Amino acid sequence: MRRDLFSPDHEAFRDLAREFIEKEVVPNYPAWEKQGQMPREVFRRLGGLGLLGTAIPEEYGGMGTRDYRYNVVLQEEAQRALVTLGTVRTQLDVILPYFLEYADRDQRTRWFPGLADGSLLTAIAMTEPGTGSDLAGIRTTAVREGDHYVLNGAKTFITGGLLADLVIVVARTTTDPANRRAGLTLLVVEDGMPGFERGRVLDKMGCKVQDTVELSFTDVRVPVANRLGEEGVAFGYLGHNLPQERMTVAVGSVAQARAAVAATIEYVRERKAFGTPVASFQNTKFELAAMSAEVEAAQTMADRAVLDLVDGQLSGADAARVKLFATEMQARIVDRCLQLFGGYGYMMEYPIARLYTDARVARIYAGTSEVMKVIIAKDLGL
Amino acid sequence: MRRDLFSPDHEAFRDLAREFIEKEVVPNYPAWEKQGQMPREVFRRLGGLGLLGTAIPEEYGGMGTRDYRYNVVLQEEAQRALVTLGTVRTQLDVILPYFLEYADRDQRTRWFPGLADGSLLTAIAMTEPGTGSDLAGIRTTAVREGDHYVLNGAKTFITGGLLADLVIVVARTTTDPANRRAGLTLLVVEDGMPGFERGRVLDKMGCKVQDTVELSFTDVRVPVANRLGEEGVAFGYLGHNLPQERMTVAVGSVAQARAAVAATIEYVRERKAFGTPVASFQNTKFELAAMSAEVEAAQTMADRAVLDLVDGQLSGADAARVKLFATEMQARIVDRCLQLFGGYGYMMEYPIARLYTDARVARIYAGTSEVMKVIIAKDLGL
Amino acid sequence: MRRDLFSPDHEAFRDLAREFIEKEVVPNYPAWEKQGQMPREVFRRLGGLGLLGTAIPEEYGGMGTRDYRYNVVLQEEAQRALVTLGTVRTQLDVILPYFLEYADRDQRTRWFPGLADGSLLTAIAMTEPGTGSDLAGIRTTAVREGDHYVLNGAKTFITGGLLADLVIVVARTTTDPANRRAGLTLLVVEDGMPGFERGRVLDKMGCKVQDTVELSFTDVRVPVANRLGEEGVAFGYLGHNLPQERMTVAVGSVAQARAAVAATIEYVRERKAFGTPVASFQNTKFELAAMSAEVEAAQTMADRAVLDLVDGQLSGADAARVKLFATEMQARIVDRCLQLFGGYGYMMEYPIARLYTDARVARIYAGTSEVMKVIIAKDLGL
Amino acid sequence: MRRDLFSPDHEAFRDLAREFIEKEVVPNYPAWEKQGQMPREVFRRLGGLGLLGTAIPEEYGGMGTRDYRYNVVLQEEAQRALVTLGTVRTQLDVILPYFLEYADRDQRTRWFPGLADGSLLTAIAMTEPGTGSDLAGIRTTAVREGDHYVLNGAKTFITGGLLADLVIVVARTTTDPANRRAGLTLLVVEDGMPGFERGRVLDKMGCKVQDTVELSFTDVRVPVANRLGEEGVAFGYLGHNLPQERMTVAVGSVAQARAAVAATIEYVRERKAFGTPVASFQNTKFELAAMSAEVEAAQTMADRAVLDLVDGQLSGADAARVKLFATEMQARIVDRCLQLFGGYGYMMEYPIARLYTDARVARIYAGTSEVMKVIIAKDLGL
Repeated sequence: MRRDLFSPDHEAFRDLAREFIEKEVVPNYPAWEKQGQMPREVFRRLGGLGLLGTAIPEEYGGMGTRDYRYNVVLQEEAQRALVTLGTVRTQLDVILPYFLEYADRDQRTRWFPGLADGSLLTAIAMTEPGTGSDLAGIRTTAVREGDHYVLNGAKTFITGGLLADLVIVVARTTTDPANRRAGLTLLVVEDGMPGFERGRVLDKMGCKVQDTVELSFTDVRVPVANRLGEEGVAFGYLGHNLPQERMTVAVGSVAQARAAVAATIEYVRERKAFGTPVASFQNTKFELAAMSAEVEAAQTMADRAVLDLVDGQLSGADAARVKLFATEMQARIVDRCLQLFGGYGYMMEYPIARLYTDARVARIYAGTSEVMKVIIAKDLGL
Repeated sequence: MRRDLFSPDHEAFRDLAREFIEKEVVPNYPAWEKQGQMPREVFRRLGGLGLLGTAIPEEYGGMGTRDYRYNVVLQEEAQRALVTLGTVRTQLDVILPYFLEYADRDQRTRWFPGLADGSLLTAIAMTEPGTGSDLAGIRTTAVREGDHYVLNGAKTFITGGLLADLVIVVARTTTDPANRRAGLTLLVVEDGMPGFERGRVLDKMGCKVQDTVELSFTDVRVPVANRLGEEGVAFGYLGHNLPQERMTVAVGSVAQARAAVAATIEYVRERKAFGTPVASFQNTKFELAAMSAEVEAAQTMADRAVLDLVDGQLSGADAARVKLFATEMQARIVDRCLQLFGGYGYMMEYPIARLYTDARVARIYAGTSEVMKVIIAKDLGL
Repeated sequence: MRRDLFSPDHEAFRDLAREFIEKEVVPNYPAWEKQGQMPREVFRRLGGLGLLGTAIPEEYGGMGTRDYRYNVVLQEEAQRALVTLGTVRTQLDVILPYFLEYADRDQRTRWFPGLADGSLLTAIAMTEPGTGSDLAGIRTTAVREGDHYVLNGAKTFITGGLLADLVIVVARTTTDPANRRAGLTLLVVEDGMPGFERGRVLDKMGCKVQDTVELSFTDVRVPVANRLGEEGVAFGYLGHNLPQERMTVAVGSVAQARAAVAATIEYVRERKAFGTPVASFQNTKFELAAMSAEVEAAQTMADRAVLDLVDGQLSGADAARVKLFATEMQARIVDRCLQLFGGYGYMMEYPIARLYTDARVARIYAGTSEVMKVIIAKDLGL
Repeated sequence: MRRDLFSPDHEAFRDLAREFIEKEVVPNYPAWEKQGQMPREVFRRLGGLGLLGTAIPEEYGGMGTRDYRYNVVLQEEAQRALVTLGTVRTQLDVILPYFLEYADRDQRTRWFPGLADGSLLTAIAMTEPGTGSDLAGIRTTAVREGDHYVLNGAKTFITGGLLADLVIVVARTTTDPANRRAGLTLLVVEDGMPGFERGRVLDKMGCKVQDTVELSFTDVRVPVANRLGEEGVAFGYLGHNLPQERMTVAVGSVAQARAAVAATIEYVRERKAFGTPVASFQNTKFELAAMSAEVEAAQTMADRAVLDLVDGQLSGADAARVKLFATEMQARIVDRCLQLFGGYGYMMEYPIARLYTDARVARIYAGTSEVMKVIIAKDLGL
C-alpha cells in the first residue's frame, strides 16, 4: 500500500544508507556475528557519511533535525538487507534522545561532536539483576559528595556495554519509600573511571552483532558535571522517551517481517519439493498472502505512529499498541516464513534462521508484550 | 490513534447520521430483525435527510460528490450504535456505483431521483446456485430479440432482493468457451416485469435485518433501454468495482470490532463475577488490550486504503489485503469479546450475540478469505 | 486412532441409539428447533427403548449400571447425526447423578420409575441473575417451617425449565458470612407447587431444541421429604458432580467436531468452486488434515478421562483440562469447517451453521474456559 | 492424567536412565553443546548400563525385547532433565530398526554386539542436496561390480555423521523413470572405506549436541555383504519405519513441552516482577493452565499411539496426526513459556532458550508439518 511519510530528503538518505549497508555491512556481517559485536570502525564510517548525526545540532557536526524518519529509514534499509545495525540503532533511537534533551551547554560541547562523527559509543544502564522492567525498583545508588556522586551498584542486560565510551547510568540519589519513582538521576559514566567494570558478556539466543553485558560500579566518582538533567527526576525522563524506544522496536519488527516475506518469496520460487517449485503449492501461496496482509497492516499502523511521533502526538498507549501488534506480527510471520524453508530454515547460513532467533527478543525488550497490555488496559480505563 | 481522513463536512454528515440512527434505527432494530428486513420507509427517511444521495449528481437531487468517505461515516455510525443499516449499505457501496458509472442520460433521469430520495430500492444479482464467486461460470442467459432481451435463469444469495424495485442482473448474452469471461451483460430488471419471481427467503445465521433471497427469471422481457453499459463486457465492470465492495466489508468489520470492544469494556466494568468486577481481572484487561491493538492496526490500514480508494489508487490486491485482515481480525475480536460476557453473551438480547452471528459472513461474502489470498498471492508473483 | 473403551454391550446400545436418532430425531429436528424444544414424547420413546435408564437400579426399571460410557455413546450418536438430544443430555449427565447419589428410599420409589421410563422431566436450578458461576453467592432462600421449607428466589439460565416436572433448586438454608459455601441445600420443586412460576424463555444464539428459562419461587412450600440429601451441604454435592458435568460437555464437543469434519469432507467432495472440486484444493486438504489431528488429540484425551471417570479416578483439574481443550478445539474446528462451505455455511439449512451457533456455548457453560484455567492453575500450585 | 502404558520393568529402566542422566549428562551438557557433539564415551557408558540394547537379541548382548516403550522412557527422562541424548535417540529410534529388521545372520554377528555395548555409532544417509524429503528423487548411485557396489553421491543433513562407524546409505541401484520409487538399496558404509568423506558440519539453530553433516561418496567400494536387506526395495523399508520415526519426534515434543512447563512453573514462583511473584499474575496462571491442558492432550494422544505402535497397529496417517499435533503444540508451549521468563528467556544460560531453538526443528524433520498434512489428507480420502 502507498506510504506517504517520506520526503525526497529521506529518500536521498535512504540511498546513502542502502549503499553503505550493502557494501560495508552485508559482507562483514557473518564475521561480526562471530565476534559478538560490530567494530567501532563502523560507527566512524557511518558518522563520516552523516548517517549518525541527523538529530545533532549543526554547530556540533550534525544535520540539526529531530526528524525520527531518518532513523526509520536507516533501520528499514538494514532489515531490507537482512542485517541489523546492532548497537547503532540503540544509540540513535534510545540513547541519543537523552543527550539531546538534557545535556547542558558544556556537555554538548564535550560529547555531541563525537556522537555525530561516530567516535563516541554509548550505552544506557537501567535494568538491574532481579528488577526487570521495574525502574522504580532500582537499587544502584549515587551519593553526592561535594562536586561528585559516588556510584555503587550492578546493572545487567546492557546493550552495547562492551565498547561504550559513555554509559548513562540510572541511579538512585534519594530514597522515599512512599514514592519509589522519586529520587532517580542520570549520570554519565565514562570509560576508564575507576570502579567501573564491565562484567560478563551474556550469551543471547540471537542479536549476535550487539553485545549485551553486565556492568558494575564500585565507588565510582562521577563528576556532577556528568549528570544529565536535574537530580531526582529521571523517572520522568525515562518515561518521556518510552514511546520512541517502543517505536524503534516496532519499526524494526515491521521491516524485518517484510524482509522475511521477501526473502521467502525468493526462496520458494527457486526451491523445489517433490519435483515442484515450492511457490506453486497453494499452501505456500496462501501462507505468504496471509502474511503479506499482516505486514501491510502493521506497516500502515507503524507509519501512522511515526507521523504522530514526529508531530509530538504519539501517546504512550498508542506506542504500546504499535509495539505489541508489530512484534507479535513479526513473531508469527518469521516463524511461518522459516517453515517454508524446510530443513534449510534451521541452518544458520540461511538468514531466515538468524531472523528467527533475532526476532524472539522483540516481544520482550523495551517492555514485554505483557507490559504493553498493562499500559493499553490503563488507557482503556480498565 | 489519530485519524486524518475526515473533513468538517464529513463530521457534519456524521452528526446527522448519528442522530438518525439513534432515534430511528436503534429503537426499531429488534422489530426489524424479527421481520427479517428494514421497512422501505427507512430508505425514504434517509433519503429525505440527504444521507443516500451524496454520490448522485446535484441535478438529480444528490450532493454530487463521489467521496467514499461519506459511506464510511454512515457505516461507522451504524456499527457504533451496535446496529447495521442492512441493505442500505449494499445499495450505496455495492450497487450504486454501477448506476453512477454506466447509466446513460435516459437511465439517470428515470432512476437517479429515486435512488437519491430513497424511493427506489435495488439489488444486484450475480451469484447462481452452484457457481459461488465464479462470475465466469454464470449461466443465466439474455437473448436479444429486437429491442428486448429475453432473460432466463436463477440467482441466489441476493441481498435485498425481496423489496428491490430495480435488480441489476448479470446475464450471459454470448457464449465463448474459449473465454468464459466474455459475453456478460448487466440488465436492470424492474419490479413487476412478467416472469420475474422472488423465491425463498434464505434463513441466515445473522444479518437478520437484510433479506437474502433467491430470484428466478423466466422469459423476462427486459428492454434494451434497461441495459447498463455495453453488451458483453460486464465482467470488467464487476471487477472494476470490487475494491470498493471489499472496502465496504472491511470498513464494516473494523467499525464493528471497535464497537464490540467498546460494548465489552462497558459490560465488564459493570458486571461482577465471584464478587469482583470482571474488569478488574488481569485476563480481562489483557484480552481487551490485545484487541485494542488489533483494532487500531486494522483501522489505520483501512483508513489508508480508504484514502487510496478516494484517490483512485487502491489496487485490487491491496483491497484484498485489507478485507482479509479486517474480517479475520473482526472474527477474533468479536469472539473474544463475547467470551467476556459469559452466559449473557449467548443470549440474543445482548448485542454481542448478534454481532457474533453477523460477523461470521464477513470472511465469506464479497470474496472469501481464500479468494483474497488467491488475489494477493498473484500480486506477490506467486 | 484406536479406541478401547467400549464393550460389545456399549456397541449394542449404540446401534439402538443410532437407529432411534436416525428415525425419530433427525426428521423432526428442524421442527423442534422452531418450537424451541423437544416434545415430552421423545423422552417417553427413549425411555421405552431403555435408553434413559442405564444408571437407574433395576428394581425401578433401569439397567442398574452407573457406567458413564452409555451416556457417551448416546451423545456420540446424536452428534454423529448432526443433531443433539437437547435436554436429554442434561437430564442424564447433569441432573440424574444427584438423584442417584442422594435420593432416599422413599424418593427413589416416587421418582426413579418415571426417570427411567421418560415420564418425568427434570431441571436443576443453580444460577441466579447476577451470580454467574458463583455458587457460593446464591441468594435464593429456603426457611424451614415444620415439615416444609418456604422457598423464595429467582433463577436463570435453567436448561429444560419449561417442561420440567421436577426441578432441583439450590437454595440457602442458613447464612454464614464467614463461610459462603455453607448452608446450601437441594430441594426438589414439583410442577404445580403454588408459587413456582416459569418466566421468560431466553432467546439463545443456538441450542434451539433445548429451552433455557427463568424460574421464580415465591413462598413455595416444599416438603422436607423433597430435600435431596442432607441440609446445608449441597455445595459439596455440586462440586462432586462437576467432573462429570464437564466431561459431558467435552464429550459433546469432541463428537460434534468430529461430525463437523465428516460433514465438511462430504461437502467439499461434492462442491465445486471455479470449476474444481473444493476437495482438490491444497488449502482444503491441509485445513481438514490439521483439524483431523486436533480432533484425534481431543478424542484420545476425552477417552482417557472417560475411563478415569468410570474408575472414579478423574480429578476436577483433569476434567477441567479436558473441557478446556475439547471446547476450544471444537470452536476452532467448527469455524474452519464452516469456512469451507463458503456462503452455504452461513445458511441455517446447512447443519454446519447450526453446529457453529450451538458450539459457541461450550466454552461458556458448565464453567467458562476462564474458570477452567483457574481450576487448573490451582492444581499446578499457582 | 493417568498413564497406563508402563510396567514395573519400564519404571526400573526409568530409574536407571534418570540416574545416569542426572549424573553424567546434565553436568556435561553445556560442554557438549560447545563441542557440537556428545563424546563417544557416552554411548559406551549407556551401553554398559544396558540402556542401548533393549531391542537387541540376548545372544548379542541385548535384552531382546522390541518394546518401544523403553525408548520412550529414555527420551522422557532426558527431556525431564532439560537435556537430550543427542544422536542416541536417532540411533535407537531411527537407525537401529533397519539393522533389526534387515540384518542377516552374518551382519548381526558383526554389528549387534557393538550396537548393544555402545562401541558402534551409526547414522543413516537419506537426504541429498536439493531433494529434501523426496526419497524417490535420490540420485546417489550404487553400481554392482562383482561382490561390491561402487557408490557415488552426496548426502546432507546427516545426523551423527561425524562420529558414525556405520552409515546406512540409501542409494539407487537401478533407475526406472516410470517408477521413481523402485531401485533404492541400503548399503552400510563403514568408517575408513576409501572414498567416504565427511564434509561440512552444518551450523544449526539448535540441537547443538548432535552434529549434522554433509557426507560424500566417491567410488566407495561397499561389499555386497554390507547390503541391508534386498536390492531395490528400500523405498518400502524406509516407509515401513516412518511411523516409529515420527513417533520418536512426537514423544520428544511432548516430553519437552512438559519439561518446559515444569521449568516455567518453577521459575515464575521464584521470580518477581514489579515486586510481585510472577506466578501470582492471573496472566501467568492462565497461560500455564492453558498450556497444561494442551500438554495433556498431546500426552494422551502420544501414549495411545505408542501402545498402537507396540501392538503393530499404528497407521502411517495416525503417526502423522500425532507428529503434527505434538510438534505444533510444542512450538506454541515453548514459545509461551519463554515469554514468561522475560529477558532471561533470551539468554542461553537459561534452558528455556535452548529448548526454544531445539524445538524449532521438530515441525520440520522426519517430515514437515506440511508433509504430515499431505499424508493425513490422503487418509481422509482427499
